[in-house]
Amino acid sequence: MNQQNGLQYRSLLKAELAEVETRLLEVTSAVPSHIAGMLQEIIDSGGKRLRPALVLLSAHLCQAPLMQAIPIAAAIEMLHTATLVHDDLIDGATLRRGKPTLNAHLSATPTVLAGDLLFARAAVMATEAQNLQLVRRFSATLEIICSGELNQFFIGRGHLPTHDEYERRIFSKTASLFALAMETGPHLAGCPAQQIADLARFGALLGSAFQITDDVLDFVSNEATLGKPVGSDLQQGLVTLPVLVYLQQHPEDTRLASLLRDPADAGQLQGFVTDLHTSGAIAATMAIADRRIEEALTLLEPFPITPYRRAIEEIATFAVRRPY
Amino acid sequence: MNQQNGLQYRSLLKAELAEVETRLLEVTSAVPSHIAGMLQEIIDSGGKRLRPALVLLSAHLCQAPLMQAIPIAAAIEMLHTATLVHDDLIDGATLRRGKPTLNAHLSATPTVLAGDLLFARAAVMATEAQNLQLVRRFSATLEIICSGELNQFFIGRGHLPTHDEYERRIFSKTASLFALAMETGPHLAGCPAQQIADLARFGALLGSAFQITDDVLDFVSNEATLGKPVGSDLQQGLVTLPVLVYLQQHPEDTRLASLLRDPADAGQLQGFVTDLHTSGAIAATMAIADRRIEEALTLLEPFPITPYRRAIEEIATFAVRRPY
Repeated sequence: MNQQNGLQYRSLLKAELAEVETRLLEVTSAVPSHIAGMLQEIIDSGGKRLRPALVLLSAHLCQAPLMQAIPIAAAIEMLHTATLVHDDLIDGATLRRGKPTLNAHLSATPTVLAGDLLFARAAVMATEAQNLQLVRRFSATLEIICSGELNQFFIGRGHLPTHDEYERRIFSKTASLFALAMETGPHLAGCPAQQIADLARFGALLGSAFQITDDVLDFVSNEATLGKPVGSDLQQGLVTLPVLVYLQQHPEDTRLASLLRDPADAGQLQGFVTDLHTSGAIAATMAIADRRIEEALTLLEPFPITPYRRAIEEIATFAVRRPY
Repeated sequence: MNQQNGLQYRSLLKAELAEVETRLLEVTSAVPSHIAGMLQEIIDSGGKRLRPALVLLSAHLCQAPLMQAIPIAAAIEMLHTATLVHDDLIDGATLRRGKPTLNAHLSATPTVLAGDLLFARAAVMATEAQNLQLVRRFSATLEIICSGELNQFFIGRGHLPTHDEYERRIFSKTASLFALAMETGPHLAGCPAQQIADLARFGALLGSAFQITDDVLDFVSNEATLGKPVGSDLQQGLVTLPVLVYLQQHPEDTRLASLLRDPADAGQLQGFVTDLHTSGAIAATMAIADRRIEEALTLLEPFPITPYRRAIEEIATFAVRRPY
């Protein structure tokens, strides 16, 4: 069950995820032909579709109407795609999931506008579930994501964050959208506020564990799997949880400060990464992610054991056990 | 009544527009301090606030609850501001309404993100009126605006549009948001669909007459008033209605084609602008704008004559009679 292909949600939600794909691709008929093909490629290269899967599973968990969950699933994935389009432009990334990014084909102007258009399309789709409270949460989550990115921009690279700052960053970057995905079901089913809060918390815990795992994989995976060099976050001056955990254990190590001043020093980076590996900081960081998943899973206990609950549990387990 | 300061809506809506300003400025407390001041300056420099005024007046016209109209008025102005932030970045404009643009202070990345954040804030505010249909129209209008800008980007400068292409461009650029502003009142008051459609049409006619007037002012105003050279649209390869009207009268004039190929030829541009002035194309273009306002005004006839209806009529008249 360590492999993406082995995850049950894909077969369990096959028809519904296919409907989500159809809804996502509709945007290509509403844009200038110049970029329709590029957007189709970006949407087709789609990744694991974890966010829409969580929307659909949370709807099943709460017996919410699927006809309403499907547009929200598509809207959340579209919003995610829009943020990636702007992120890749900002980072100057030319490949994502092995495919050229939009900014690899286009100049900044149409890339900005195409991202805006995807945000707008996502917002239109979000209204299709006819649930005002959910639309509001949708827009508020977009605001959290943008605000976090803007904050991150002004903090800049080469900054040593506090643990709280790290948590705020991964919440706005990743966990907030997972939270929104998981609270869709109880919103649509008209569940009590406590149940909405519980599943949102499940999503936030899952999302932050997912991001922590990403940050660990940046140190432990290999370049072929990641598509970027090991330690690339640190190389770009981005300090993540494994480094914070290491520094807590080794406050005397002054190399980080010098690395953040001079990230191009490959030899020093390599030495630091090696010591981080042998220090046990990786395992300690993953233990933090694991505990979040454990806590998250307890929030599912009130729900009946169905294949849908099992699939959510499986995704939660996968989030901290994946090879990439 | 030709001057902005003489327009009645400002005194009529004084308290409500002040509330809109307060709502707009709230965004500055939710952004990194680095840009709070810049955003405040951009919001404060605010222009005529025609769009929020139309929202409030259409609410009065239909006796819709003002408490719901105010967040929509702020949301529409915020959306307008967000599009200006991205437009100025794209155009490389460093001044707007005499104040530095965001991209005059900041690099492209934070400017893109700040625009995104303003879109998100606008979308959150749009949900505060608790009217799902209106939120949907709000997002759909954002989509129309983005899609139009993207189309315009791919069409590029130096293109001779058909009359239909021109109409589509000014609808997405300007008229669509005026339409949304004017249909807010009947939506919030729960008016019949025909009344919603009529006021949306009023807004679209007003918005297109407003944009046509802008396009005429680009030829007839002076550089001191406009803050840009006379004929600057054409100089940038953008063909607007006065030129299309002139070409209809003078299909034999081949200078436009050569101007579009070589927009830097200032002498040829000056000659063309002079001939356009003497041809009567300006008056013929303004006659088109005037007819739209006349048609728009007939759509107000079913409504009781109140100071609010009078203020709307005054804005409509102002739209085609303003000196800038």
